[in-house]
Amino acid sequence: MTVRWSDMDAFGHVNNVQVLRLLEEVRVHAFEDLRDHGGPSLLESGVVVARHEVEYLAPLVWRLAPVPADIWITAVGGASFEVGYEIYDDDESAGSPGAGGERTVYVRAATTCVAYDLATGSARRLGTVEREVLESWIDEPVPFRRRSR
Amino acid sequence: MTVRWSDMDAFGHVNNVQVLRLLEEVRVHAFEDLRDHGGPSLLESGVVVARHEVEYLAPLVWRLAPVPADIWITAVGGASFEVGYEIYDDDESAGSPGAGGERTVYVRAATTCVAYDLATGSARRLGTVEREVLESWIDEPVPFRRRSR
Amino acid sequence: MTVRWSDMDAFGHVNNVQVLRLLEEVRVHAFEDLRDHGGPSLLESGVVVARHEVEYLAPLVWRLAPVPADIWITAVGGASFEVGYEIYDDDESAGSPGAGGERTVYVRAATTCVAYDLATGSARRLGTVEREVLESWIDEPVPFRRRSR
Amino acid sequence: MTVRWSDMDAFGHVNNVQVLRLLEEVRVHAFEDLRDHGGPSLLESGVVVARHEVEYLAPLVWRLAPVPADIWITAVGGASFEVGYEIYDDDESAGSPGAGGERTVYVRAATTCVAYDLATGSARRLGTVEREVLESWIDEPVPFRRRSR
Repeated sequence: MTVRWSDMDAFGHVNNVQVLRLLEEVRVHAFEDLRDHGGPSLLESGVVVARHEVEYLAPLVWRLAPVPADIWITAVGGASFEVGYEIYDDDESAGSPGAGGERTVYVRAATTCVAYDLATGSARRLGTVEREVLESWIDEPVPFRRRSR
Repeated sequence: MTVRWSDMDAFGHVNNVQVLRLLEEVRVHAFEDLRDHGGPSLLESGVVVARHEVEYLAPLVWRLAPVPADIWITAVGGASFEVGYEIYDDDESAGSPGAGGERTVYVRAATTCVAYDLATGSARRLGTVEREVLESWIDEPVPFRRRSR
Repeated sequence: MTVRWSDMDAFGHVNNVQVLRLLEEVRVHAFEDLRDHGGPSLLESGVVVARHEVEYLAPLVWRLAPVPADIWITAVGGASFEVGYEIYDDDESAGSPGAGGERTVYVRAATTCVAYDLATGSARRLGTVEREVLESWIDEPVPFRRRSR
Repeated sequence: MTVRWSDMDAFGHVNNVQVLRLLEEVRVHAFEDLRDHGGPSLLESGVVVARHEVEYLAPLVWRLAPVPADIWITAVGGASFEVGYEIYDDDESAGSPGAGGERTVYVRAATTCVAYDLATGSARRLGTVEREVLESWIDEPVPFRRRSR
């Protein structure tokens, strides 16, 4: 995931809103991967965002090198699905080979996506192929630290 | 709250990430109001965003006229506070005077803000005046429709 | 013209690219004014940007209060027209009433707009009403300081 | 140069203002290259944009694959320098090997950068190393199609 210099705000950190912009980009790329794997193009058949939940755990500083970001599916419903994300750095230098390093998690987030019919402007049911491909990506729920009241 | 033409994305709606940009703007204006009312400038003494939760309930369409947005405080802790928001339109035309119209709610959101010392780069406790002013703004929790699992 | 907090970059000034975003907003509002005055909606009938020239003369600092911006037409052709802009502040406090104050010019810019048929995706000629309304707005060329070589 | 999905506007093309955002990113990467080649970090020692001139020659459509962009220096002065850019696609498929394909040029642009002392907030002269490195990058002026009047 490429961070732009302009993603920083006046405080010199990657701005919290731009983090969602970065996650949108990760999601768009994942949707296109889906198409390459025989699935439909969710971008073209239509998906809208119904909900975001984002936790900012450590300040993300701008840099030229890409920042690793994981994306996966946490649930699939009849007309919607849940996406999970983690933006992080693995510090490989700290540990000996095989011992592993520390992971710094900058952001954890979840998005509810609703299948949408662009032509009629209304929600639609997920297709069989869409469901199958999305379900094959299902993994653990996002381990949020704080839970909303 | 002024919506820019560029807040629309390729689907022709105000983009879900830009909605958070709009809420940032509402928050910044509220923080400056706080200062005008004898409070400190949270922008200058430092506040960072630790969490966002956003529900998109109806598509927001770009227009020249400002869109009403409410902002209030839902909780105040030792070093943090919770902000609630609602972006909406009141349809006055539907009802007779006094009867009131329908409210279309586009977005409901909550943000956890953490007081931050810009000089040392670490969290700090809220000051007495900050707490008092923030507590005077406390209102109901955000009535989210979906609750995260 | 409203400046958003996020228009600042990591240097703490309104970012030079965001200045063009602000000018886009000024242009969009002017185009809508055009429609209110009996002209067509250039936004709907289609206009694309073919050229920008921008001079940054003084740093623009973020503030809550709107920043004055002038927009006018400098030339009208068969299928295109030229827009001029100035972003500035008039310091009224310096002079006595009637004597006028100093004007600080932050930005001068010019944009070439080409009439565009959204349906066919190609350039089109300006309509008679479009030409008449645009020509009624013609004023002096933008007094750029530096000329390109 | 990576184009984000959000760089598209409501017309479905990469927005003309976002093109300048992309060029900023190209410039920032070139400045960091400069540092890797023994030059100073212009980002840290300070550079501000004094002027942009941009020509939009063909609509740029969003895609996952990076878009090629060239950047070079067209002039170096005592306290400023001129940057040239071209965003394009080479169509290799059209020609036989060695015969070359067609180049589609989307954007040509030029930026005047002024060396800036971040500490004092004023213009400064370019250092000897900065001048030498920048001069080693000098190439032809940007072949703009339209010339400003």
